[in-house]
Amino acid sequence: MNTGELSEQIKKKGSYLCVGLDTDVNKIPHCIKSEADPVFSFNKAIIDATAIYSVAYKPNIAFYESLGIEGWKSLEKTVLYIRKKYPEIFLIADAKRGDIGNTSEMYAKTFFETFDFDAVTLSPYMGFDTVAPFLKYKNKWSILLALTSNPSANDFQYSEDKNGLRLFEKVMSVSKEWGENIMYVVGATRAEMLADVRKIVPDSFLLVPGIGAQGGSLEDVSKYGMNKHCGLIVNSSRAILYADSTPTFAETASREAEKVQKEMDAIIRLMDR
Amino acid sequence: MNTGELSEQIKKKGSYLCVGLDTDVNKIPHCIKSEADPVFSFNKAIIDATAIYSVAYKPNIAFYESLGIEGWKSLEKTVLYIRKKYPEIFLIADAKRGDIGNTSEMYAKTFFETFDFDAVTLSPYMGFDTVAPFLKYKNKWSILLALTSNPSANDFQYSEDKNGLRLFEKVMSVSKEWGENIMYVVGATRAEMLADVRKIVPDSFLLVPGIGAQGGSLEDVSKYGMNKHCGLIVNSSRAILYADSTPTFAETASREAEKVQKEMDAIIRLMDR
Repeated sequence: MNTGELSEQIKKKGSYLCVGLDTDVNKIPHCIKSEADPVFSFNKAIIDATAIYSVAYKPNIAFYESLGIEGWKSLEKTVLYIRKKYPEIFLIADAKRGDIGNTSEMYAKTFFETFDFDAVTLSPYMGFDTVAPFLKYKNKWSILLALTSNPSANDFQYSEDKNGLRLFEKVMSVSKEWGENIMYVVGATRAEMLADVRKIVPDSFLLVPGIGAQGGSLEDVSKYGMNKHCGLIVNSSRAILYADSTPTFAETASREAEKVQKEMDAIIRLMDR
Repeated sequence: MNTGELSEQIKKKGSYLCVGLDTDVNKIPHCIKSEADPVFSFNKAIIDATAIYSVAYKPNIAFYESLGIEGWKSLEKTVLYIRKKYPEIFLIADAKRGDIGNTSEMYAKTFFETFDFDAVTLSPYMGFDTVAPFLKYKNKWSILLALTSNPSANDFQYSEDKNGLRLFEKVMSVSKEWGENIMYVVGATRAEMLADVRKIVPDSFLLVPGIGAQGGSLEDVSKYGMNKHCGLIVNSSRAILYADSTPTFAETASREAEKVQKEMDAIIRLMDR
């Protein structure tokens, strides 16, 4: 998918919501646990309940991997289900991979060929070599970690170089020269930083985790981070997935997604004026 | 495994060689491709041929993942085979994971419980939160990327802060306070840097990729990086795995591993004097 199509979907749905499929077998409702593939059944119900309010889904690969072979089967079914029923969705593998050369090529093949994801999250620590194999794919996206939403992001990401450039800023200013198909992860818990981010990458799409359970504000994120093409994909995982642990979980997830979408729609309209 | 046991094995085998199981279905000998599980058959032959000369194996997780479910099955069989037949081996998952919170917990569970690895490679970009769940496991090891062997390691790892500390040095000086069970990746292609590394982490084990196909020198790595407990695990992948593409590949791999081991044994003896 290209960003023109993504922006078009955002406009059409009045939403820049990404639902994070952090599907944890220990957290899914009891009523669904007896199904043959409870992870896929849960995902399917969540997707059908929220697709009208979302432009993207982001399976968190760790949750599937941790289940071994069964987990990969659930992931495969989830990807195929979205691709078939909701072809307009931007599909992100939250994998945070970061390797080089032939290994990185393998990862690109896994996520862009074996699975037909539109984008994959990558760690920039090893530099250009990590990203290069992913950039060879047309209309596929590398989403680099820049400023993350966790407390210990401070350990290294704020480290200033001799020119006062912080590491997360350096990651963006260096990597934006690598190619067109790059987006960035910028955590919602540091919304005011989005203004600094926009000075470096005014036109890039940003994937913003951290609203909902992690406490970031959608209003602040949008105020500091939105550009004229929207330029934001805001993720919510737990606040939508686990809002209700009873048999009505899908309806509740739908209402939670709708709430976010309504807020987003109002913000988009405000920005358009 | 604890480092005392690892050092004991190094002494016993006269080797600090790690064989990287970067098993690529496109590169394994033609004669083995008709087997039911060619990846596992290849690994098994390589392991049996090299275990006497090695203290560690390091499956490169990307290569298995890229094959989907079949790949995970091959990995599982490989891990179980080593655990059963060569219980003295230090088993490293080269996964370069780097996530936070519940995702990081999932990864720890995958590599330390679902699979019984001794260690896993991790990217430090997101800070302590990435490593914390792994440090909860007794006698299991987090191997943090510090200075990697690829050309674009320069992009960020050499970035100097206001005090002249380079990012790879900062990663070590900050993370060594997080817990005992941490090792570091330091590439062999920058052997002279190992002297700087040893100023910060004199006692830690270092996993050193980049000898063989990537061009690093074992002699230089050992000269600058070895401490009194050896403190080095030096990896070779392609130079051992793909030295021979005919039915004699295992014998050739054995000879290649033996060559490295003999050189290591001589270095250990020299250092012991």
